[in-house]
Amino acid sequence: MTSTKLDAVTSHIDDNFNNSVDRLIEWLKIPSVSTDSQFDEEVLRAANWMGDQLAALGFEIKLIKTPGHPVLYAERKSANQDAPTALYYGHYDVQPGDPFELWDTAPFEPVIKDSKYGKKLVARGAQDDKGQVMTFIEAFRAWIEVAGDLPCNIKIMLEGEEESGSANLAGFLKANNELLKADVCVVCDTGMWDIDTPAITYALRGIVDAEITIKGPNRDLHSGMYGGAVINPLHALASIVAQLHDENGTIQIDNFYNGVPELGPEERKQFADLNHDDEGFFGEIGLSGAAGEKEYTTPEKLWVRPTCDVNGMWGGYTGKGHKTVIAAQASLKLSCRLVGEQDPQSILDNIEKFFTERLPKDFTMSISNSGRGLPIKLSVDSPYLQAAIAGLDHEFDNPTKLIGMGGSIPAVGQIKETLGLDSVMVGFGLSDDNIHSPNEKYELTCLQRGIRSHAAILAKLADVK
Amino acid sequence: MTSTKLDAVTSHIDDNFNNSVDRLIEWLKIPSVSTDSQFDEEVLRAANWMGDQLAALGFEIKLIKTPGHPVLYAERKSANQDAPTALYYGHYDVQPGDPFELWDTAPFEPVIKDSKYGKKLVARGAQDDKGQVMTFIEAFRAWIEVAGDLPCNIKIMLEGEEESGSANLAGFLKANNELLKADVCVVCDTGMWDIDTPAITYALRGIVDAEITIKGPNRDLHSGMYGGAVINPLHALASIVAQLHDENGTIQIDNFYNGVPELGPEERKQFADLNHDDEGFFGEIGLSGAAGEKEYTTPEKLWVRPTCDVNGMWGGYTGKGHKTVIAAQASLKLSCRLVGEQDPQSILDNIEKFFTERLPKDFTMSISNSGRGLPIKLSVDSPYLQAAIAGLDHEFDNPTKLIGMGGSIPAVGQIKETLGLDSVMVGFGLSDDNIHSPNEKYELTCLQRGIRSHAAILAKLADVK
Repeated sequence: MTSTKLDAVTSHIDDNFNNSVDRLIEWLKIPSVSTDSQFDEEVLRAANWMGDQLAALGFEIKLIKTPGHPVLYAERKSANQDAPTALYYGHYDVQPGDPFELWDTAPFEPVIKDSKYGKKLVARGAQDDKGQVMTFIEAFRAWIEVAGDLPCNIKIMLEGEEESGSANLAGFLKANNELLKADVCVVCDTGMWDIDTPAITYALRGIVDAEITIKGPNRDLHSGMYGGAVINPLHALASIVAQLHDENGTIQIDNFYNGVPELGPEERKQFADLNHDDEGFFGEIGLSGAAGEKEYTTPEKLWVRPTCDVNGMWGGYTGKGHKTVIAAQASLKLSCRLVGEQDPQSILDNIEKFFTERLPKDFTMSISNSGRGLPIKLSVDSPYLQAAIAGLDHEFDNPTKLIGMGGSIPAVGQIKETLGLDSVMVGFGLSDDNIHSPNEKYELTCLQRGIRSHAAILAKLADVK
Repeated sequence: MTSTKLDAVTSHIDDNFNNSVDRLIEWLKIPSVSTDSQFDEEVLRAANWMGDQLAALGFEIKLIKTPGHPVLYAERKSANQDAPTALYYGHYDVQPGDPFELWDTAPFEPVIKDSKYGKKLVARGAQDDKGQVMTFIEAFRAWIEVAGDLPCNIKIMLEGEEESGSANLAGFLKANNELLKADVCVVCDTGMWDIDTPAITYALRGIVDAEITIKGPNRDLHSGMYGGAVINPLHALASIVAQLHDENGTIQIDNFYNGVPELGPEERKQFADLNHDDEGFFGEIGLSGAAGEKEYTTPEKLWVRPTCDVNGMWGGYTGKGHKTVIAAQASLKLSCRLVGEQDPQSILDNIEKFFTERLPKDFTMSISNSGRGLPIKLSVDSPYLQAAIAGLDHEFDNPTKLIGMGGSIPAVGQIKETLGLDSVMVGFGLSDDNIHSPNEKYELTCLQRGIRSHAAILAKLADVK
């Protein structure tokens, strides 16, 4: 692949960047919230919107049904017969917009605002994952528009349930094993080290979630008529939550640490050498420093140590004013981030056991689970990983950092498990992008350099034998 | 007062009972929820509805403004110049209807259903307090319709904020001290001992409530990107709630038990002699027995021991599906039931101190309070109390029990404090009336015998010199 051709492609990207931004804005206006069925039509509309875009670029499109939201599949062959096949993964669904009142502008009305890096695009999904998906889509567009061809054979798989736990992805992968055959998978929803330094994520935590409701009395009680003589379900649930961690942040669920690898001195040195900016990292979210397991650094806590967090809790009267009630039941949603060989099902069983064993007399509980993903680590020897590094080197002066990521991408584990494919995780998010929070944004420079990087990575991937 | 006249009145009550029920149903259809401002117009409508009823009975009516919901005041003098003046207190506001999905029929569409005692009226407020208020209103109506006069001078004061903490009642009482002058106060929102045994409540717990929000990070966080390295506000709040009581149910707030009287051997014997039916009492709400302070009986726990209960708790994602978020903040509403000389303000200060002292680093908290009521005990020597007992003896074969009540009636403390009036608390609720819960009901037999009892009590009160 001549670098002249790549230069023409990246120039084309720059010249047409405003159009790329406009297309992303159009996509972001569709509130494709997968966790809430009232948005089902919008989720479908977001898939079809991207399907139309890809069809116009000469991709073959399939909207493949699942028991939940469909997967948008697209394929375009390269004229280069020897080129490898790369399967690009992303998702077209987004997190819910709430709490709406904490957004400066409406989550589904994208706006460009000034930022410390120039300009940023603010909207739900601006980064996670629509903005990130656009980095490779627009790179494909540039190659096709400039060279009339793609350097590699490209398959694209965009799911619509990543934000609700990718519950149907494993089934989809199994059912479409043949269709999805490829040499490598490229996954986009990861971050940069900083605004000037690209990163490839080589370690991802897994996840398992649970929703639990405990029930005591058979109805809500007047706190005056019963208070003092019955166990309050909210107190009971609070007491169990308070026992989830000891004082050092160690999780107390039985056998929770089975399969968690011990960190060797070399790996610990590698983490120490990152010189993580704790002050900046926690300062940005209004905290003076790290909490959690005292003997680990922040990158270790976030990338290679497991967690257990309550994501929501509710019970009793939560409206305006006061209601002197003892609620009949109390509920929570929790999720655990997993590492190494931790097994989601075994963790889930032990969560149930943990709560059951601590239930007061006469109490019952119910537990349900909506998603899980295996933890994963990528081999550093992979020629595809090296090609991605070479592509990033073409765009950035700073060398690429190999990092971990605290969040889960259930797809990556399932792609490895079902398709036998390693995933190269290269994305252009920043830690202050507010994903899953109000005022989510994506820096326009990240979008632009992301597109340019993917154009270069495509060229380097084509050379892998 | 001749018993012939009283007999004519009670016959009239029985003959016209269906009309009494119809009037109550009409009142119950008005959703006068005082804790939620979206019901403000309905609250006013409920006051005016009763105002019209009383005006038609020859009462002078005043709807007296407060900073919150108005107080409905009514007055009708007796031809009997020597008769004492009785001030009747009740409230025209009701608890919220939620959780609506747990009602068998809509809370504000009253229905008459079969019950183990004959028939019951099911609706929010059926007992608390519209049904109970109707017992004395309909007794007045019967006296006026039969005798053309009331045996005593009657003043009525119905407030609209009892369910939201009676925040403006104290100010109202102070501002209308002269208007409200009376010899005794009669309060209706209390219960019977059982379906055949009337009760007069001589001890009421006080109350103080608080709403608390604790805040950690300055925004909601992605649990993957931050989980394990930050303190989760929901865990922090759960941990504080878990510390509110020790294993024996003893409340750990500083100086909480200051002013709580020790129970002497005689009082403990009196409680023991009640032979409280723990099995039935807890069985009815799906529990096998009592919790709480081990060294006290259930009546002691409910009537003369203080409590601290979380009435609602919330934070993070509580919608459908799962959202992997670490919430920036977590909130709760709690209330304490008070006895003896416990001071609401001091308790409130110590609640704030309890939470503040346990806040993790970098956390802040806010606390607000919406209502309070002093604990109270009535003197057994009161001639008005004795008159009430005589009136109940006229209606019931079983002797009247003098009991305590776990719930608070803030008005009773404020009436004593501001007007210097003792309150005779006589009501016809049953413990299974589901007040503050779905499917609230009032037995029609309780309504009917309540009206008859109040007619008799009026006759006995007239004889007090």
